[in-house]
Amino acid sequence: MSLTHAHILQAHQRIKSYINQTPILKSDVIDNLFGQKILFKYEGVQKTGSFKARGALNALLKLKEEDKLPDYIVTVSSGNHAQATAYAGQMLGVRVKVFFPPNPIPKKLNNTQALGAETFVAESRKQAEAMVRDEIEQSKAFFLPPFNHKDIICGQGTSCLEALQELQTTKQKLPSAIFATCGGGGWLSGTFLASRGIDSTIKVVGCEPDIANDAYQSYKAGKIISFENAPQTIADGARTLKVGDINFEYLQQLDDFLTATEQEIISARILLEEHLAVDVEPTSAVAFACMKKWLEENKPHNDKPLFVLLSGSNV
Amino acid sequence: MSLTHAHILQAHQRIKSYINQTPILKSDVIDNLFGQKILFKYEGVQKTGSFKARGALNALLKLKEEDKLPDYIVTVSSGNHAQATAYAGQMLGVRVKVFFPPNPIPKKLNNTQALGAETFVAESRKQAEAMVRDEIEQSKAFFLPPFNHKDIICGQGTSCLEALQELQTTKQKLPSAIFATCGGGGWLSGTFLASRGIDSTIKVVGCEPDIANDAYQSYKAGKIISFENAPQTIADGARTLKVGDINFEYLQQLDDFLTATEQEIISARILLEEHLAVDVEPTSAVAFACMKKWLEENKPHNDKPLFVLLSGSNV
Repeated sequence: MSLTHAHILQAHQRIKSYINQTPILKSDVIDNLFGQKILFKYEGVQKTGSFKARGALNALLKLKEEDKLPDYIVTVSSGNHAQATAYAGQMLGVRVKVFFPPNPIPKKLNNTQALGAETFVAESRKQAEAMVRDEIEQSKAFFLPPFNHKDIICGQGTSCLEALQELQTTKQKLPSAIFATCGGGGWLSGTFLASRGIDSTIKVVGCEPDIANDAYQSYKAGKIISFENAPQTIADGARTLKVGDINFEYLQQLDDFLTATEQEIISARILLEEHLAVDVEPTSAVAFACMKKWLEENKPHNDKPLFVLLSGSNV
Repeated sequence: MSLTHAHILQAHQRIKSYINQTPILKSDVIDNLFGQKILFKYEGVQKTGSFKARGALNALLKLKEEDKLPDYIVTVSSGNHAQATAYAGQMLGVRVKVFFPPNPIPKKLNNTQALGAETFVAESRKQAEAMVRDEIEQSKAFFLPPFNHKDIICGQGTSCLEALQELQTTKQKLPSAIFATCGGGGWLSGTFLASRGIDSTIKVVGCEPDIANDAYQSYKAGKIISFENAPQTIADGARTLKVGDINFEYLQQLDDFLTATEQEIISARILLEEHLAVDVEPTSAVAFACMKKWLEENKPHNDKPLFVLLSGSNV
């Protein structure tokens, strides 16, 4: 069964008392620079510093509602989903173990441990994924995937939903296009579903690093294309080998997909940190770098803003 | 003429398209620790990283409305008002020079310069204030005071106004008490005015470091008491020598005033950064440390939250 806007609304009802309503930031300097009103949804002040808390909380709270909350949860993550799972597990009293791909951001590893989760840093992403499989078989652990899961998609989609609802409530114009970075595709899928239910004319654009463009390639080819090894992009949240098959149903329906070079991502991040005056993780800057490219080719003939989703602040 | 709630509403109309609506953060861990629902208004993601942008923008935009915008503005500030004035000046095309008391936080000094302002670090707060006076006389510079000014008070009060309006719009309970740190008293005065106009039963509590308790002493004595030298509290925003006489009219009407030791401020800050997962400047932690003390003596017999205003993120 395909997901709909109603599932995002349900997820929002489920998690909204547990999460922070994150702010929409803006900068006149950036607007002037681009000759375009740009709004930024900033998940850096979300629980655990990223939008991932929305997905993990939705998944575990739904399991609890159904009286199926497991005793022991495992996952594999480069860090943001790790912290989110640790946080949700701690809140609901569930044991959590996270398998990290190599070279995790120290802050993400430390925070995951501080939230009470056990951690293990693997020698490769493939090894991390294999170890999770072993743990599921041997210890009957419950696997909470980082993105390829309907409840994760719906929880993550509440970020866009919340932002568009805020614009409606405060009588501001809805955006002409929304930009979000693609890791495994959960956030983008949820964003697509949240947006389509509110205004189906809003374009939803996928964004990815050039050197980690598996989702871009998959979007163009109409089938999932996978990397053999994790691409060493600065945007650690986009180092996934391939998008999820559940997510790909929605990713295929996106209006556009763009990529940015590492240098473009770095420049975009500097601009954001300078003018929004907040911490922005490189994964977030991918969306802004791609928006810049999109704007060069698309001249929106209206006064609607562009909307960039910023995933988190964990650097 | 005394200020009223209507002045805060006008200031909000004036500045709201220029500022960020900052988020209300919460933490279940903190709530459980205190046995009390606590909400935090987080100005760390405001323009220039603190609530001060609200006051400076309101003052300059009002001058512009009245066709009185000066060519050259000077001020004295330990950093947050410096950045705010530089930002507002840059936006409106006005030359700004800031005189800093000694040992400013490097980030605040750098940011002020990056926003195009000229800067000078004095050898004492008194010297900084004297140099500003000289500059006003010699160069006919316009002085934008950091707190003792009606338009600064009204702009700064929009932070509390915005938060209480958000609670009303989203049908959440209004707080039983609001806590804010006192530097020169502008934020507290604005908070008092914003709060009284929405619900006059909400207690507004002033908060100050023990070793910088001039406002506390003034509140108790019913007259302004001044420090000779800037107290070396970790809360740099509270190193003011005395509160403003304009502000004191409103500070005298506060429901309570508490102080916290340096150790209590440090502990409060650690707790906030750990559980809200955001940067919190020490000046912000003063309000939370005092809330903790207030809660030990006051047991609110209702299910209303407590509300703590967090001034900024510049550390």
